[in-house]
Amino acid sequence: MINNRFVVLVSGGMDSATLLYHLAATDAVLFPLAVNYGQRHRYHELLAAENVVERAQKKFEGVGNIRVIDVPSFAELADTSSQTSDAIAVPEGHYEDASMKQTVVPNRNMVLIALATAYAIARKCSQVAYAAHAGDHAIYPDCRPAFARAMEEAMLLCDYDPIGLRAPFLGITKAGIVALGTKLEVPFDLTYSCYKGRPFHCGKCGTCTERREAFALAGVADPTVYEGDA
Amino acid sequence: MINNRFVVLVSGGMDSATLLYHLAATDAVLFPLAVNYGQRHRYHELLAAENVVERAQKKFEGVGNIRVIDVPSFAELADTSSQTSDAIAVPEGHYEDASMKQTVVPNRNMVLIALATAYAIARKCSQVAYAAHAGDHAIYPDCRPAFARAMEEAMLLCDYDPIGLRAPFLGITKAGIVALGTKLEVPFDLTYSCYKGRPFHCGKCGTCTERREAFALAGVADPTVYEGDA
Repeated sequence: MINNRFVVLVSGGMDSATLLYHLAATDAVLFPLAVNYGQRHRYHELLAAENVVERAQKKFEGVGNIRVIDVPSFAELADTSSQTSDAIAVPEGHYEDASMKQTVVPNRNMVLIALATAYAIARKCSQVAYAAHAGDHAIYPDCRPAFARAMEEAMLLCDYDPIGLRAPFLGITKAGIVALGTKLEVPFDLTYSCYKGRPFHCGKCGTCTERREAFALAGVADPTVYEGDA
Repeated sequence: MINNRFVVLVSGGMDSATLLYHLAATDAVLFPLAVNYGQRHRYHELLAAENVVERAQKKFEGVGNIRVIDVPSFAELADTSSQTSDAIAVPEGHYEDASMKQTVVPNRNMVLIALATAYAIARKCSQVAYAAHAGDHAIYPDCRPAFARAMEEAMLLCDYDPIGLRAPFLGITKAGIVALGTKLEVPFDLTYSCYKGRPFHCGKCGTCTERREAFALAGVADPTVYEGDA
């Protein structure tokens, strides 16, 4: 069953917002899926995901309603990350710092892709898309191209019909995503990245640092309101 | 990190009970994991899983407490099966019948294995085990050896340390599992298979039919109380 129907994993962040717009700009039919897996920054993230999808629906015909599912028990299983345990502080600094490893949620992407694949089968979609990018590889094992290839191999075999995995940003940096998203008129001001999950982006955690840097490198004005700026 | 610590997926059925005993009979340290994914027969299944693990703990030192997690939203996503939707009746008959396809929960095993892998990483286990067997291949795509190999490939790459997938029954029929389980003194009377989720096994659905047949083929007395017998 090869068709142009996709389940798109959306988190509320810049990367998945750009992925949504990137696919919507083709003739694809999209089923956006967001997951509350008990992440520290869930409310801001999921609200941002809803806002981004709603905005995309105004621009593109093929964007369906967002589906948000609750899997809070995942955080209880995978309680070794600052993003799933309140007992572990969110580190500040750059993704390249060793301390950033404590932000890694064990096996998050396999779980998200597995859920998205089930949804794809139930909704007769032939593909799942996720927004892993080249900048993620160093710290997140489940954003590496080899992982994506292996997952797709399993997805091709998991049901009667094969399901494909699209990860079109695997070779693009976050600055490249900013550049692409700017062309596509992605509402970056509606997106939310901060690992601390407070009303404004902290500007200091790994993902805020990466966010600031990406806009600077792309030469695009950063619309984010950071704490202290507000 | 190669060690003898396993997360074992247990469902309350005969196959995973035998898997638990099979691994426990080595010097393995086991972390049993059961998932409420909103399945029709969840209460009987999960109660059976708790009872089986409790019994195993009396016999083997290496069996840890069972962890049961709630992921009820999975059934909402994957609502195309008789096991996840009340609107679809559980068919009666043999697994070989075409109607049995409607019992297949889309991508269930990828989701369960992904959750178990996250738990394995968090608990420093090197392996996940699941009880797919040779009789499952025809109807369940996610019980095929090729699927298990592909999943393991992804699991080897999903984290900093590789996680292995053990599926020791892939080459064994259900009758073979009955024979092995009988040797290992698996309490089959505590297990629950029926897809209908009523107090007694219905004796007529695909999994009850397979259960009866397996005991008969193995030449082992079936301890199950079926509706009508009671």
